[in-house]
Amino acid sequence: MDVNEPAAAAPNSEETAWALRQLENIRESIDNVDAALIHLLAERFKFTQQVGRLKARHGLPAADLDREARQIKRLRGLAEEAHLDPEFAEKFLGFIVAEVIHHHVKIANDTGAIPTP
Amino acid sequence: MDVNEPAAAAPNSEETAWALRQLENIRESIDNVDAALIHLLAERFKFTQQVGRLKARHGLPAADLDREARQIKRLRGLAEEAHLDPEFAEKFLGFIVAEVIHHHVKIANDTGAIPTP
Repeated sequence: MDVNEPAAAAPNSEETAWALRQLENIRESIDNVDAALIHLLAERFKFTQQVGRLKARHGLPAADLDREARQIKRLRGLAEEAHLDPEFAEKFLGFIVAEVIHHHVKIANDTGAIPTP
Repeated sequence: MDVNEPAAAAPNSEETAWALRQLENIRESIDNVDAALIHLLAERFKFTQQVGRLKARHGLPAADLDREARQIKRLRGLAEEAHLDPEFAEKFLGFIVAEVIHHHVKIANDTGAIPTP
């Protein structure tokens, strides 16, 4: 409850009904954004799986710390421009990369390649 | 190193050079997808901040477990269609929602509203 606006706390008031319609409308937009995010993530993992297969096939090192540092710097910059917390953007990349590593280990196991440490 | 293909392990070979060009090309696509993801996430947080302000202003409950359950089910379905691990999609939503809660607590603190438990 919002202690500053006791009037709005009354359920079924016209104002509350308006707020609920607004809420429903914003949630539809969130659902649209989420569908786009899921499809972009699926596309991103297709690319990183290609990277994993390429690295396994050509004996390229699994990790590239320079590349990761450049990615972090770039995403933090993009986040700032978009008024998104750069800390969150960095955490997000870490979250994705953890899943990518999980995929790459699986590819290495499936192909019988020994992943470079 | 890929133990199954010792020939590819020789550095500077033509095949390795080809693989590195392929890698660069895929990484450019990953960077494009990441820029899109960052901007979509920024847009999503604009919407959830709107939700947070609306809920605080109209004394609506902060949490909605039914809504969250519907979101999880929907995103898992979308993930399956896009050949993305549904477990990952659910973890991803959890990751985002944790950040949203962090934002909502901040909005509640800033507006002086007491968030509904």
